[in-house]
Amino acid sequence: MKALRYHGERDIRYEDFEDASLTADTDVVVKMDLCAICGSDLHIYHGEGFSEDTGYCVGHEAVGTVEEVGKNVRRFRKGDPVMISAAVGCGNCPACFAGEIVKCHVSGFACYGLSHALQGCQAEAIRVPMGDFNLRAIPEGLDAEQALMLTDNLPTSHLGCQRADVTPGADVGIVGLGPIGLMGVEIVHVMGAGRVFALDLVPERRELAAKLGAIPVDPASATETIFEATRGKMLQSVVECVGADASLNLAIQLAGVRGTISSIGVNNNMAFPFPMALMLAKGLTFRMALCSVQSHWDELIPLVQSGRLHPEQFISHRMPLSQGAEAYRLFDAKEDGAMKMVFAP
Amino acid sequence: MKALRYHGERDIRYEDFEDASLTADTDVVVKMDLCAICGSDLHIYHGEGFSEDTGYCVGHEAVGTVEEVGKNVRRFRKGDPVMISAAVGCGNCPACFAGEIVKCHVSGFACYGLSHALQGCQAEAIRVPMGDFNLRAIPEGLDAEQALMLTDNLPTSHLGCQRADVTPGADVGIVGLGPIGLMGVEIVHVMGAGRVFALDLVPERRELAAKLGAIPVDPASATETIFEATRGKMLQSVVECVGADASLNLAIQLAGVRGTISSIGVNNNMAFPFPMALMLAKGLTFRMALCSVQSHWDELIPLVQSGRLHPEQFISHRMPLSQGAEAYRLFDAKEDGAMKMVFAP
Amino acid sequence: MKALRYHGERDIRYEDFEDASLTADTDVVVKMDLCAICGSDLHIYHGEGFSEDTGYCVGHEAVGTVEEVGKNVRRFRKGDPVMISAAVGCGNCPACFAGEIVKCHVSGFACYGLSHALQGCQAEAIRVPMGDFNLRAIPEGLDAEQALMLTDNLPTSHLGCQRADVTPGADVGIVGLGPIGLMGVEIVHVMGAGRVFALDLVPERRELAAKLGAIPVDPASATETIFEATRGKMLQSVVECVGADASLNLAIQLAGVRGTISSIGVNNNMAFPFPMALMLAKGLTFRMALCSVQSHWDELIPLVQSGRLHPEQFISHRMPLSQGAEAYRLFDAKEDGAMKMVFAP
Amino acid sequence: MKALRYHGERDIRYEDFEDASLTADTDVVVKMDLCAICGSDLHIYHGEGFSEDTGYCVGHEAVGTVEEVGKNVRRFRKGDPVMISAAVGCGNCPACFAGEIVKCHVSGFACYGLSHALQGCQAEAIRVPMGDFNLRAIPEGLDAEQALMLTDNLPTSHLGCQRADVTPGADVGIVGLGPIGLMGVEIVHVMGAGRVFALDLVPERRELAAKLGAIPVDPASATETIFEATRGKMLQSVVECVGADASLNLAIQLAGVRGTISSIGVNNNMAFPFPMALMLAKGLTFRMALCSVQSHWDELIPLVQSGRLHPEQFISHRMPLSQGAEAYRLFDAKEDGAMKMVFAP
Repeated sequence: MKALRYHGERDIRYEDFEDASLTADTDVVVKMDLCAICGSDLHIYHGEGFSEDTGYCVGHEAVGTVEEVGKNVRRFRKGDPVMISAAVGCGNCPACFAGEIVKCHVSGFACYGLSHALQGCQAEAIRVPMGDFNLRAIPEGLDAEQALMLTDNLPTSHLGCQRADVTPGADVGIVGLGPIGLMGVEIVHVMGAGRVFALDLVPERRELAAKLGAIPVDPASATETIFEATRGKMLQSVVECVGADASLNLAIQLAGVRGTISSIGVNNNMAFPFPMALMLAKGLTFRMALCSVQSHWDELIPLVQSGRLHPEQFISHRMPLSQGAEAYRLFDAKEDGAMKMVFAP
Repeated sequence: MKALRYHGERDIRYEDFEDASLTADTDVVVKMDLCAICGSDLHIYHGEGFSEDTGYCVGHEAVGTVEEVGKNVRRFRKGDPVMISAAVGCGNCPACFAGEIVKCHVSGFACYGLSHALQGCQAEAIRVPMGDFNLRAIPEGLDAEQALMLTDNLPTSHLGCQRADVTPGADVGIVGLGPIGLMGVEIVHVMGAGRVFALDLVPERRELAAKLGAIPVDPASATETIFEATRGKMLQSVVECVGADASLNLAIQLAGVRGTISSIGVNNNMAFPFPMALMLAKGLTFRMALCSVQSHWDELIPLVQSGRLHPEQFISHRMPLSQGAEAYRLFDAKEDGAMKMVFAP
Repeated sequence: MKALRYHGERDIRYEDFEDASLTADTDVVVKMDLCAICGSDLHIYHGEGFSEDTGYCVGHEAVGTVEEVGKNVRRFRKGDPVMISAAVGCGNCPACFAGEIVKCHVSGFACYGLSHALQGCQAEAIRVPMGDFNLRAIPEGLDAEQALMLTDNLPTSHLGCQRADVTPGADVGIVGLGPIGLMGVEIVHVMGAGRVFALDLVPERRELAAKLGAIPVDPASATETIFEATRGKMLQSVVECVGADASLNLAIQLAGVRGTISSIGVNNNMAFPFPMALMLAKGLTFRMALCSVQSHWDELIPLVQSGRLHPEQFISHRMPLSQGAEAYRLFDAKEDGAMKMVFAP
Repeated sequence: MKALRYHGERDIRYEDFEDASLTADTDVVVKMDLCAICGSDLHIYHGEGFSEDTGYCVGHEAVGTVEEVGKNVRRFRKGDPVMISAAVGCGNCPACFAGEIVKCHVSGFACYGLSHALQGCQAEAIRVPMGDFNLRAIPEGLDAEQALMLTDNLPTSHLGCQRADVTPGADVGIVGLGPIGLMGVEIVHVMGAGRVFALDLVPERRELAAKLGAIPVDPASATETIFEATRGKMLQSVVECVGADASLNLAIQLAGVRGTISSIGVNNNMAFPFPMALMLAKGLTFRMALCSVQSHWDELIPLVQSGRLHPEQFISHRMPLSQGAEAYRLFDAKEDGAMKMVFAP
């Protein structure tokens, strides 16, 4: 079959790859209908991947149609339209029972498309381990693009917003307005946010947030702007969606007394210069976490079904898989309004 | 001064009444700008009032301008625009500290306009006891009509919705679509409700709810309609805004497994035939309560300021105080689309 | 094999019964080590059972040793010591995923020992359907008697206490001091209760509660006693463990402003005369529910392991299964200090 | 009157000081019955105080008897036994209404005994501003020593434990076993903790914790010990009571997946080397805060009254005020089992 393979920094190729096939009685093989590029795929694209491997097939956001099921698969059969969770759990350990799938005792933090260990989904088909646990039938009333957003980005945004202690009427900040940040603007409104201050260095992205009802704020003057707008109270909740040292620092500055900063960006600094005196004086709460996708579906699906969330609106490009290299280039360069890039293989 | 006085069943008169004046150092006299008729005033109008008294001045929802302050009043001075809480507390007992103002140890459940004990606000002026506690400056950005809705109806609706355990994506029912029920449609959306099923016997009121994004449901076929729409799951949360035996019973029928019924209607039946077997089999939670208005202001004010709630939209009539008798008649008869009746004395 | 069989009112016999055996690939056969009589078994003993059936084997609380496993059982093998959940779920439907096992879409509310449909556990062996879901290995550090209490009574008591909104320092009431009520005395202490008022008609049971640190209260004078002790505040939380109309009524009387009554007794009255005016004036919350045993194990097991709960202390009798008839008689008559009756077949 | 005055590093003197007297109509003068040295007083003793001032009277934990009240004081009169909150608020600003007294808009973070601005309480009498808000009558059933512990240490410990997300059965760590840490051992037990791991460099302090039911752990081998005891799960909640960089780092290491670290130690490092990668991988929550004493009284008082908390047990020394210099020396040197030092002036 055809697939997008990673061969080194900025070198993604559309090539032949070994066909996806069953390797265990609990596996499911899914023929791809739609898949997408995630912001975290850019780490790989930049050559700073999560493994030393090359030549593997990338990608971890996809929806498709069941092609073949192992004999112990109980919940799916050939022809079922399904969405594939980016988090991969065994479904049968204490962590999976508790919904902490990224801490699965068996799979570790398993995700598709990080090495040859688990084939990525930017391909014509994919093998899904423990299909009963890691797949879900596309819910009634959702189209394929909406379901695609549920495989990673929307749950990740939801996780960040859930952990930000938003209450009805609260002033909330969203730092970073890629797809996850923009989805966050919608989510915190659903959670009752009064005012949503939306920050990004790119003016066009701030305009997108403004269309969703947020107050666009330039990060360069954010502290002063928000101080004035809130008469010094600053923000009850800040959702940080970047992970850079600078944006984390800004998020902590923007939080008010007893406020919460919830970060869903990735930051691996083991000696981040943390302003303890500020944490103490303001009595803050700081949180980070990785997303156990499946655990968010029960709350998110009805919100998309009932029209309260529209995650598909952030899809900017729909391209054939064969144009994968160009799609990665556009997305990386933020050219042509690139936001969410979707492949229809 | 002029005031609306109650003289018996369906007998409200615009007449002279003793001028409002200070009786304690903590009192404030407020000149009325706007006042309103509440659904609970109809109990009095029907002659089934909360006291045996007659000739007293009615009403408990009002905003005005400070006219005179007692010498121990610290937070207000002549000319301040204020809103008057329908719940009246001493501000200095354990119940008031805990926000349970309707359980004030000193005032009992004190409310304006139930007898001569505490003059009502459908008048040219009113004396407010413990002004520092029972008044608030009209918040920045709110007009007088919005503030008026904050003196009773919006907090009452909020109380009912808060106690209904609404979570993002939940299917919610609102039983009874007067001003409080319609405000509830907006409030549960702010709390994240996925679908809101709105029930009332009057088709026009169901249409108003539909304009707010709710699904209108005829109570006569509600059980079947909602069973089908939810595929048998029924509702997670039901806000009951009537208080009649029939509507309480319906609310309990509509709740699903581990659901919550929160009633803000008034029901004084001491032997309501309660379906225990249903409570047990479905594992339900049932709640009732009276509203301590002041305790809801901190959460509601930012929601009105930021444009997430629009309680003033339910005002159907604006009339001079001198037409009080006619206003009560229209409201009671639900004539001329009567919903929320406001006086500008 | 030998088993206790129900033949009509007060007629339990130790007799031969068909051997337990596998009927599905997910079944497990467990050889009994200990089993117990539950208060709800007395409904059957009194001839007011949950079915019209007779001759079936009774009982739903047991621990044992795995004897045989179906070929799709993944988590157990012959020789494993296990505890058997009184609630029986399929483990693979939305209700089971949500922990609402008593609402399992497949099994309905399935429980052992109510008819021939699912053999009871007061026998030498039992077939457990969906063993991977309905069994758990006896946790490290727990003896068989502690594990036995985890199969029904302790989780049921825990459910009632959890739903009573106990907070640290709260005044709490426990109405009914059988094993479940007495376990509740320990549980609400663990939840932080300040004072625990323990009510039962039987003075000896009140003394047992007093030994656990509770304040014993005679139901006849409970309202006055608790009014005085709390200076009129009454109780924040009341756990009702009987289910009779009178005890439910008393529980509602004992609750204070914004208090919660959580009932785990069984009451099937469809027209219980409910004091709505009291619910409204006090702003109460009322709850009932059935227990999904498995959902409570993760919280309860560490509490027993760490010595904070001692549910085994309520075992009053240990008898051979062959004396089943006498055990039921003693338990029903509350003779000889009968509290929790355990069989060692 | 006589008072303890600070004259520089390790120089506390028992000397004459200007008599405490009313300066505003809302002031109360309290004659001292008992006062105490707090761990934070050692910052002053070490010459690293919170001001440049010298010669001022120190101390902020005290109970006494009302001597004189301003004419606007409503809740107290001469002869009332009272406890004095270490946090001083105006009682009439949004922060005080919200219980965030340390963020009072009027007083800033006001505390007694940090400079001449607000006289300390290690003296024969003290002036309490806004007495109605900053004093409380010693609750029924509490002796003076128990009330003294409620003026700062017990609420501070409670704050830290409250923010640590303790749930029934949880494994909890307490880092640092001074009076606040030891009180924390009792508090987290009341909150339902299953196992409490207690860490301190001083073996005698670990022994005190063990007597309270905790598992004593040497910080040098804490990571390994707790890893083994929890089979790798580590701790759900860690209460850090020191504030040093090393102890904060250890607390973060000890937290398990989705765990919470709540620090009530003081750390003013603006560039603490924070292990972000660990926060992310474990999905942690980190919190700090200062204590608004009054806001904790409603929950703590019943817990002391009902005998669930015994904060007075940590008093190691009772001395006359005239021996203040020696008391400070002993406390600083941790000599003679010095734990909580109390003066009876």
